Amino acid sequence: MIQTFSHTDLNNLDNRFRSTLINSISGFKSLQLVGTLSPDDRSNLAVFNSIFHLGANPPLIGMVVRPDGNEHSTLKNIISQKFYTLNNVRESFYKDAHQTSARYAEGDSEFKNCNFTEQYISDFSAPFVGESNIKIGLELKQIIPVELNNTNIIIGEIKLIQFEDGILSDDGFINLNQAGSVTVAGLDSYYTTAPLSRLAYAKPGKEPMIINNQNI
Amino acid sequence: MIQTFSHTDLNNLDNRFRSTLINSISGFKSLQLVGTLSPDDRSNLAVFNSIFHLGANPPLIGMVVRPDGNEHSTLKNIISQKFYTLNNVRESFYKDAHQTSARYAEGDSEFKNCNFTEQYISDFSAPFVGESNIKIGLELKQIIPVELNNTNIIIGEIKLIQFEDGILSDDGFINLNQAGSVTVAGLDSYYTTAPLSRLAYAKPGKEPMIINNQNI
Repeated sequence: MIQTFSHTDLNNLDNRFRSTLINSISGFKSLQLVGTLSPDDRSNLAVFNSIFHLGANPPLIGMVVRPDGNEHSTLKNIISQKFYTLNNVRESFYKDAHQTSARYAEGDSEFKNCNFTEQYISDFSAPFVGESNIKIGLELKQIIPVELNNTNIIIGEIKLIQFEDGILSDDGFINLNQAGSVTVAGLDSYYTTAPLSRLAYAKPGKEPMIINNQNI
Repeated sequence: MIQTFSHTDLNNLDNRFRSTLINSISGFKSLQLVGTLSPDDRSNLAVFNSIFHLGANPPLIGMVVRPDGNEHSTLKNIISQKFYTLNNVRESFYKDAHQTSARYAEGDSEFKNCNFTEQYISDFSAPFVGESNIKIGLELKQIIPVELNNTNIIIGEIKLIQFEDGILSDDGFINLNQAGSVTVAGLDSYYTTAPLSRLAYAKPGKEPMIINNQNI
């Protein structure tokens, strides 16, 4: 048995139902804690699930920012300070990461309220999350306003990476599974992962080849 | 022990190593098979891992398209035909999905070469994947060229959804885990998921509350 929603059906859905449906249907998502500082040096931490890989050379990461609440503080800080951090969410603290989405008063740091350690690495000006074991420092490169739904796409260039020893493969692959990173569906459903395999570069006329089914 | 890559370190990396590193570091990604038709009605199917939720009202999904090979055919078809499909990748056929990334000759359909069934739903003009159990039909709304790295961000509006009975919760949540959807790290490492929990809307001063740790 199957269920079908036409364009008209989708338009007629209750707003909250549609939001939950559309948020969850596009697949498992990247999850990162975004660390920023305000112009008067107050730290902010917010969980984002709309992070996407944009390119490797130069190393660029995209992120969708909505016009509301917490995300707005993050955007303001990124615009004024230019530097921000992404920090992976691990199984051991995914509930605290979710808690950063609560609407704390502006300037009331989610680091303190949600049990995270503010960490500074060399001269990078934005705060990292001490509890994360994969940390990325970015510099704002472009803000693309999307008029279709009043969101902004923030593009940053990776300026610094720090991660735990032992999760980097010889060819550059970072082992998120071994790092304990979790993924999310919709806005609120968290998952650990279990490796299937790593597959070789695909070529016409050949069967997909497993290059690694252990250390991923 | 930790490892750190500065901006200079990143610039000095071998291109292939950096590509693997940057592709994998941003987190687990959404994975979808993108189905299109050419103007002369030849089907094309390509696996994409740069899909992101842009908004629920209107229901919008974004996708990064690179200027090379297979992705270029998908982009050409989307521009000329306006309609395209996203189809979830399940554990049972993730190797065939990966195989669609091989460079087949233009017009030599990945549906046929990679063992997928071309499916048409009502009057939607682009082909769906018969083997998928979550299918999304989209209409092109906007193409945003990103000059920083010569990619394009494609934004589509959801016009049709079809999925297997039993994976939709009462509140609109689509159960990707139960559907057998997989996630990907980097370009080639595939994972199944295991539920942690679904958490309630976060509020300041309250502990994160589990609203569901079974049916997600």
